Amino acid sequence: MRYIYSFKEGDWRNKRLLGGKGSSLAQMTQLGFPVPPGFTITTDACLKFYSPVKEELDKLVNRLKMVLDGSERDEILNKIQELIRDLELPNGLMDEVRRYMDWLSKEMGRSFGDPENPLLVSVRSGAPVSMPGMMDTILNLGLNDETVKGLEKLTGDRRFALDAYRRFLHMYGTIALGIDKELFREVEEEILAKYGVNDPSELGIEGLEELVDRFKEIVTKMYSEDVLDPWVELENAIKAVFRSWMNPRAIVYRLINNITEDQAHGTAVNIQAMVFGNMGFDSGTGVLFTRDVATGEDRIYGEFLPNAQGEDVVAGIRTPKPIEYLRSISEDLYNTLVSKAKELEKRNGDVQDIEFTVERGKLYFLQARNAKMTPKARVKTAVDMANEGIISREEAVLKVSPEVVQSLLYPSIKDGYEGKPLAKGIPASPGAVSGIAVFDPDTAIEKANQGYDVILVRVETTPDDVHGFYASKGILTSRGGNTSHAAVVARAMGKSAVVGAESIKIDYSKRMFTVDGVVVKEGDWITIDGTSGHIYLGKVPTEIPEPPKELDQLLQWADEFRRLGIWANADLPEDAEVARKFGAEGIGLLRIERMFRRPERLKILRNVILSKSKEERLKHMVKLAEMIKGDFKEVLKVMDGLPVIIRLIDPPLHEFLPDSKELLREIYEGRMKGEDVSELEDIYRRVVSIEEANPMMGHRGVRVGITHPEIYWGLAIAILEATAELKKEGYNPKTEIMIPQVAIPEEVDYVLENVLKPAVKEVEERYGVKLDVKLGSMIETVRATLLAGELAKRLDFFSFGTNDLTQAVFSFSRDDVENKFMAQYLELGILKDNPFQHLDKEGVGRLIKLCVEEARKANPNIEIGLCGEHGGDPKSIEFLHKAGLDYVSASPYRILPARIAAAHANIRERLGIV
Amino acid sequence: MRYIYSFKEGDWRNKRLLGGKGSSLAQMTQLGFPVPPGFTITTDACLKFYSPVKEELDKLVNRLKMVLDGSERDEILNKIQELIRDLELPNGLMDEVRRYMDWLSKEMGRSFGDPENPLLVSVRSGAPVSMPGMMDTILNLGLNDETVKGLEKLTGDRRFALDAYRRFLHMYGTIALGIDKELFREVEEEILAKYGVNDPSELGIEGLEELVDRFKEIVTKMYSEDVLDPWVELENAIKAVFRSWMNPRAIVYRLINNITEDQAHGTAVNIQAMVFGNMGFDSGTGVLFTRDVATGEDRIYGEFLPNAQGEDVVAGIRTPKPIEYLRSISEDLYNTLVSKAKELEKRNGDVQDIEFTVERGKLYFLQARNAKMTPKARVKTAVDMANEGIISREEAVLKVSPEVVQSLLYPSIKDGYEGKPLAKGIPASPGAVSGIAVFDPDTAIEKANQGYDVILVRVETTPDDVHGFYASKGILTSRGGNTSHAAVVARAMGKSAVVGAESIKIDYSKRMFTVDGVVVKEGDWITIDGTSGHIYLGKVPTEIPEPPKELDQLLQWADEFRRLGIWANADLPEDAEVARKFGAEGIGLLRIERMFRRPERLKILRNVILSKSKEERLKHMVKLAEMIKGDFKEVLKVMDGLPVIIRLIDPPLHEFLPDSKELLREIYEGRMKGEDVSELEDIYRRVVSIEEANPMMGHRGVRVGITHPEIYWGLAIAILEATAELKKEGYNPKTEIMIPQVAIPEEVDYVLENVLKPAVKEVEERYGVKLDVKLGSMIETVRATLLAGELAKRLDFFSFGTNDLTQAVFSFSRDDVENKFMAQYLELGILKDNPFQHLDKEGVGRLIKLCVEEARKANPNIEIGLCGEHGGDPKSIEFLHKAGLDYVSASPYRILPARIAAAHANIRERLGIV
Repeated sequence: MRYIYSFKEGDWRNKRLLGGKGSSLAQMTQLGFPVPPGFTITTDACLKFYSPVKEELDKLVNRLKMVLDGSERDEILNKIQELIRDLELPNGLMDEVRRYMDWLSKEMGRSFGDPENPLLVSVRSGAPVSMPGMMDTILNLGLNDETVKGLEKLTGDRRFALDAYRRFLHMYGTIALGIDKELFREVEEEILAKYGVNDPSELGIEGLEELVDRFKEIVTKMYSEDVLDPWVELENAIKAVFRSWMNPRAIVYRLINNITEDQAHGTAVNIQAMVFGNMGFDSGTGVLFTRDVATGEDRIYGEFLPNAQGEDVVAGIRTPKPIEYLRSISEDLYNTLVSKAKELEKRNGDVQDIEFTVERGKLYFLQARNAKMTPKARVKTAVDMANEGIISREEAVLKVSPEVVQSLLYPSIKDGYEGKPLAKGIPASPGAVSGIAVFDPDTAIEKANQGYDVILVRVETTPDDVHGFYASKGILTSRGGNTSHAAVVARAMGKSAVVGAESIKIDYSKRMFTVDGVVVKEGDWITIDGTSGHIYLGKVPTEIPEPPKELDQLLQWADEFRRLGIWANADLPEDAEVARKFGAEGIGLLRIERMFRRPERLKILRNVILSKSKEERLKHMVKLAEMIKGDFKEVLKVMDGLPVIIRLIDPPLHEFLPDSKELLREIYEGRMKGEDVSELEDIYRRVVSIEEANPMMGHRGVRVGITHPEIYWGLAIAILEATAELKKEGYNPKTEIMIPQVAIPEEVDYVLENVLKPAVKEVEERYGVKLDVKLGSMIETVRATLLAGELAKRLDFFSFGTNDLTQAVFSFSRDDVENKFMAQYLELGILKDNPFQHLDKEGVGRLIKLCVEEARKANPNIEIGLCGEHGGDPKSIEFLHKAGLDYVSASPYRILPARIAAAHANIRERLGIV
Repeated sequence: MRYIYSFKEGDWRNKRLLGGKGSSLAQMTQLGFPVPPGFTITTDACLKFYSPVKEELDKLVNRLKMVLDGSERDEILNKIQELIRDLELPNGLMDEVRRYMDWLSKEMGRSFGDPENPLLVSVRSGAPVSMPGMMDTILNLGLNDETVKGLEKLTGDRRFALDAYRRFLHMYGTIALGIDKELFREVEEEILAKYGVNDPSELGIEGLEELVDRFKEIVTKMYSEDVLDPWVELENAIKAVFRSWMNPRAIVYRLINNITEDQAHGTAVNIQAMVFGNMGFDSGTGVLFTRDVATGEDRIYGEFLPNAQGEDVVAGIRTPKPIEYLRSISEDLYNTLVSKAKELEKRNGDVQDIEFTVERGKLYFLQARNAKMTPKARVKTAVDMANEGIISREEAVLKVSPEVVQSLLYPSIKDGYEGKPLAKGIPASPGAVSGIAVFDPDTAIEKANQGYDVILVRVETTPDDVHGFYASKGILTSRGGNTSHAAVVARAMGKSAVVGAESIKIDYSKRMFTVDGVVVKEGDWITIDGTSGHIYLGKVPTEIPEPPKELDQLLQWADEFRRLGIWANADLPEDAEVARKFGAEGIGLLRIERMFRRPERLKILRNVILSKSKEERLKHMVKLAEMIKGDFKEVLKVMDGLPVIIRLIDPPLHEFLPDSKELLREIYEGRMKGEDVSELEDIYRRVVSIEEANPMMGHRGVRVGITHPEIYWGLAIAILEATAELKKEGYNPKTEIMIPQVAIPEEVDYVLENVLKPAVKEVEERYGVKLDVKLGSMIETVRATLLAGELAKRLDFFSFGTNDLTQAVFSFSRDDVENKFMAQYLELGILKDNPFQHLDKEGVGRLIKLCVEEARKANPNIEIGLCGEHGGDPKSIEFLHKAGLDYVSASPYRILPARIAAAHANIRERLGIV
């Protein structure tokens, strides 16, 4: 088994074997770019390194997922460190390393460990999956008391050599040997103080000599001198990089980002000849972006820090120069850098983010990768590159994720707003929102009920606070990170959140917080920006920014590439207008219930429900139907020529009645005041008689349509009359009527034979027009999916209601579950995703596939869609595309990302991308 | 296509083609029994007869299932009659009939329609499915003014001939020609009055002549004389029998008994030479049973009515003689009859019910069928016949249905009780029960809560009464039949019911009913016997009668033949004792919740639930666990050596807390009295915070075990300590611990790793014994069935919870559904069965099969059972046997029928009986 490939040898397309950095170095080397020579130890070697303890490791990592308690978590992480501390490199690996180091020495004309002409190398991690900053790197390796002299001789610069040595001792000591950073810091501070400077870079030779001696003392006090043998250094560094794959922050990063150990596949190690950006002002280190990653403009953009090594950039003490500064060193060098960078952009088909070093006027490429960009830039560059012929239109569409398009629709602080943020926290869930500050969940509900927008401010949150989340526009906490309870739950609910804003000091007892002397009391307006993490005082103006003009082009391409239709859930004419504007190809779900919210309608609906006879009920129902007919007409008009699925009334009837506990209170309050409460008592009795133990699974949907057919009859007549009238007016309404909650084919028979077909016949005769109305059913009970063939024979269309279906498959009542334990399930890793947000493929998805297959077999013409919340979720859309649905129906504001997601699914399927 | 087979030709095993009667006549003929010659027109001819209107008919019959309204039902039934009124016989059928009539004439030496020597025939219906009394028969066919003279000549008995003729005219006129019965009745009454007699049999020749003339006048006034041409008579009679297949009572009978038209397959027509039992006192007609159908004793039993035709027996005017009377006619004849009957019993392997006629001292067999028996007789005769070698033991087991065994366990009026019933109604749901009479559902609940046994008495019931059913021991109505709401719902709930007791007059306003002057007021004790339909005044002693001693033998055989294990659901030591007595092979479900019913335990459980910290909760839990440990020990001791599955706590926690509305009332009542209610208010707030919108799908089962692991920990420790202590005492407890409500494999991981495995380890170490406890999960969420493979890898056993699973598959909350609309669904035929009673094979069953298959693939050793109510339902057991379960767990009182059902399933499977 071969563990090493030089940059010239490696197959750069095999990122899984070489890691991201190794792959990029191989590509550039093989393209003839100036790259310091070197080689990559593969990820396979890393896996081999861990193989003796693999089983135990897997167990501990799995156990980690199940632990909520912080101290227990730390305990397990410590156990892992212990377990891997003394692991040895795979047999033969060091021999192979030696051979490649020999080759590298020849290549460079220097020799590793040679006191006269020493070869120095960097040892860098580089995993297949990007895990920025999680793992370790050691520079200047090969230095010791002898070779440092060689370096001095080679460079003619003693100060530089000493500086390199002290950097190495620090990195090697802490990273490879595991010595406490504190020991080095104390020594460093002592010497800086002694010489009266603030930074080692300001030390003279004498000071550096002293620092080096003292650093060496730390190392040799704990280890023998042997550890400074260059070969021992190299072996220790390789081990350290391998071990860093399992350091606590890397493990937690993978857990948080749901990267399985198998997907991750360990890290490679890149060993590369050192080049030095810190050899004077014709040297330096920089980054370059081939386009503007903020706006997407096609202009070179970057920074250069003269006379510096990479870590100085990270430290951020000196201000870098704009990239054009390089021209002052060498116009040629600048032109080479830019043209090579652009070549790479073209080859890799994406904006490049390039790290380079200049050593005494000579350019070296150290890494190139696809650049991270703002959503706006992502869209613009993708469309531009397709128009420039760099990539195909399919590739352009694939480059823009649905989430990117979605984020273009988040509200942000109004462009040009000049106010300063009060504080900054960790951006945990995107979007800028304003509201009055409240400090406990009950007040959040109370104020929200009074009509206020509310921001819930807590030190940290627990499941006991979740009911307050629903009432709030956004969440702000002063403690906790991106995986804290507040962050997880806010994202799950799609609420904006800023967490861990440590500068705000919350005082629950006084109901206020302070930041740098500014006091924010309960009821004061604040604004939080979950995209940037900023917190502002007052109601800062927000806007949904104008999307880049290239978005339309991109969406048009996406529409050409997708097979799945994108419809919208819309209940009222105004929703339908938004939906059509965003490109909805139909309305997949119109919930009649929403039309009953107006008080005068609700009152009649209550009469319908509380009627004591069929005749009375029919009378009220006819009146109600007459009132909503106009709304049906409006929606059908807006969507003229496109299908509109209207669902017959679905929720349990008592949802429309007053709350029984509230009534009981009123009755007693009235009694205490000596009022006559007999009418209230009568209502109370009737409300209680309609109440159910589990209304979600009770007397609702088609069940009401069967026990009280006059309700469905009234609704059907109103829908059909609206359709008939529009036809007569010359419109082309494409009405579809949907029966909810079906579990038994005979339920459909009953409603078709006793309500819908007779109603169609009656209205057709009365108006003298043919209606061509499709009749279908919601598929939201498990049984409907299992009897799909039987149902499909009877109906024109199916529409999956995956909200209810998910509830039924898990036996999870969404309200209760999200209130009581969903957050804990997500934190513990019992659920990877909230199944109400991302479709549960193993459970719900399996039923959907089965259902589609059997339905199409029984009725090849059946139209099958989905109108649950998953219709707007990109993750779910790919699955639904594959399951063979005709369309998904999303809320209007999720149509754009859904169009992209549907295109991705189809392109990926065609190209065989998993 | 051949439509006719003579009794000599037909394959008597093909009952589907020949019908029951035709098959029996063919068998006896082919065995050489004296049977009047004849032939059978097949059921295929009947289907052909209906084929021109089949589609329309099917539609109407299907529509019937969807109609609740009586007048609409009648309308559809009338439409069907209209549709079939003028149907013609299949082409060529009458030619075939003529050929067979020619043959029959030759056979008999008489000629059809011959005025000198006329052949007379009977034309009888006979369907493959027994539908007693539903269809039509015409006797003495072939008579008219000419042939009646021939009959007189042949018999030398003018009175006899006239009597036959008047009988024929009546039957033919009403049945074949559709003339109103009233017309005949009026004429008959007039003439009886004129001659001063009570019955036509008392008329002399003159009176009979006049009656015949007047009957003929009725017929010929509406039809021409032609209808009395013998061939026309024959054709009309065949049509009439075919039509009778679709007469309203036959259609409704099939609907009620869930016999599909396809299963039923029409009726055959049997045409047979007439023999006459009314030719003097050496003639007569009788029935014989080869054993006593009441007790099962092996003795000939039967009745004989001298000088009579079959219809006279039905009329019941004359009292028949015991069968031994035949000896006075001819010892030989009697012996022949008995020996032939016994031969038939042996050949058919069942007690025979034989109809015969004696014509002038000559014996004729007219029909034989397997006898209907009392449950007791059914068991005894099956076992006896197996012991006598007439049938195999398998056949004996198959002969006794689980329902028969179940009915042996119903309470009945105590043997020897001599009181007279007050009234009689239709027995609608079996069992004798006593209770105080109440007249509305709310009073039923009120009185039941006061501890009374209650009988709900209503004129008829509606869905609004159903909540009262739960509180009542039995239901009594004065109106409605076997398919009325009361009957359907009572059977569905397993409540005793007597319906349609028309002699009781209910006065709701006075809260009483009267029967023949006896007044029964609310609160008075009554007893109803749902098996017999009798209603008694007072608390009549009831008993579960001693089962026949042969039952043990039968059950032993059944146990040998079954593959499926029969376990019991039992929560307390006393339940376990009953279960073991009935032969349970394990406890499939012990619900810990039942152990918390005692007030002192419930109080601590409430403390557990309302605890404000983990520590507090654990403290209360440990105390509670200590209290129930003794119960675990008791149950394990009773079941020593047999498996006992203990389920960790499952229901939503607030089921154990006081009702929030009740608390609210108490708070207000307290306030009005000026009491301090702050403690109540505190409890109220905590109770409300635990309340859920849909508790069935909320925070319960394993979800509680994960959010509050200390609760499961306490329970596990108690169970395991009980096990360990018994082991030390020398017992062999086979404890299994079951996790409820699992939907996600990671839930199981969590509970196994954090609770169950550590608890086992701890108790094993503490007691120094190996526990060998199986750990498993309830399969009651849909997702658990879909992820069976993943779950099976982690667990030792599965137990289907089909109550919850049925709820989830239908999205039916059982309480709500049964209260609000189940009865209506059953009445409308939307559901054929209550799926909570009989397993829904298409939906729930499909998931069960899938789950078993994938679980066994992933873990071949997994033990799979079922502990829902379906475990005690014979209909479901056959399916579960086929699905490959290891056992079902039933409530103790359903174990005996379950053992039989399991044996049936296995025998049928082995023999390939569908």
